[in-house]
Amino acid sequence: MKHWKVINEKEVFNVKKRLTVSVQKIKLHDGRIIDDYYQVRLPSSVITVARTKKKDILMSRQYFHGFKKVSIVLPGGIIEKGEKPLQTAKRELLEETGYSSDDWQLLGSFVTHVHQVCSKVHFFFADNAKQIAKPLSNDLEDMEIILMTEKEIINAIKNEDIISMGTITALTLAKVILYHKPKPV
Amino acid sequence: MKHWKVINEKEVFNVKKRLTVSVQKIKLHDGRIIDDYYQVRLPSSVITVARTKKKDILMSRQYFHGFKKVSIVLPGGIIEKGEKPLQTAKRELLEETGYSSDDWQLLGSFVTHVHQVCSKVHFFFADNAKQIAKPLSNDLEDMEIILMTEKEIINAIKNEDIISMGTITALTLAKVILYHKPKPV
Repeated sequence: MKHWKVINEKEVFNVKKRLTVSVQKIKLHDGRIIDDYYQVRLPSSVITVARTKKKDILMSRQYFHGFKKVSIVLPGGIIEKGEKPLQTAKRELLEETGYSSDDWQLLGSFVTHVHQVCSKVHFFFADNAKQIAKPLSNDLEDMEIILMTEKEIINAIKNEDIISMGTITALTLAKVILYHKPKPV
Repeated sequence: MKHWKVINEKEVFNVKKRLTVSVQKIKLHDGRIIDDYYQVRLPSSVITVARTKKKDILMSRQYFHGFKKVSIVLPGGIIEKGEKPLQTAKRELLEETGYSSDDWQLLGSFVTHVHQVCSKVHFFFADNAKQIAKPLSNDLEDMEIILMTEKEIINAIKNEDIISMGTITALTLAKVILYHKPKPV
């Protein structure tokens, strides 16, 4: 299957390296030329399903301005320059929740919006998480850390208190992978 | 938990109603003012896990310019003006694969990029899908329709032939929901 060829690319919009929009002139697999194929690039990020010894999952209740609602999400964040995904996952878990784990597993890495938006999300599972510090206060957000059982999570999904696609992907990936391999290594 | 207040909003970028970037002046929950909070809006979309009577899943192999790779994805697409999500799911399944089903179930609706990007994705499961037409040829893409067993899908994920977050979310959601409720209604 043939790839498309980028004849030229011009950045048309850039916000503090957190969001770039560019327009490409493209030659398709069949030779046709497209003058204005837009691409959006967002930073890569991580999301972690962290489970305590009691099998509770660490989550936070926050206000999300993107869809103007209070919602429950898993800990995670943007990969900073020079960081490996696992380092980001450990840093974000500690900063957001004050918890730490010695038992990490990568659940998978996937790409959002495959046609026009390029951003990678790495999903982790951290078992036997323990509180070792207080959460750091976040610059903008007002958040509340909560421990949830699997049953509470299922109810929160049914009540639309969990609506982040990243959070649902991490939870279902963990469930499917842990179901196939009951003992993570 | 207090919401943020939008004092004003200015659209700074718009591509054919498929992508809009706007900058908002915001009053945070604690009264602080943020002058330049960016928001990206992308159209809402649907993704379908369609299963045949033989328990094969309908997928397509395509080139994705967003990450410059050939990859395997589930059928789906953007909700057009005036369409309900289920109508889009039925239309896209038929157009992309030539298959149809009378046995649809909503797996859930989730939001991508909760902080700055607002786009909703609706996930469906369609059982007993049957071929009733030839796939329509797509405007830009060169694609191949394939039927995959669950084992082939797991191998494709391991080999990184499936890297779309939308596709993995739909597959794991279907797995978790069908596992809890073996007989979809």
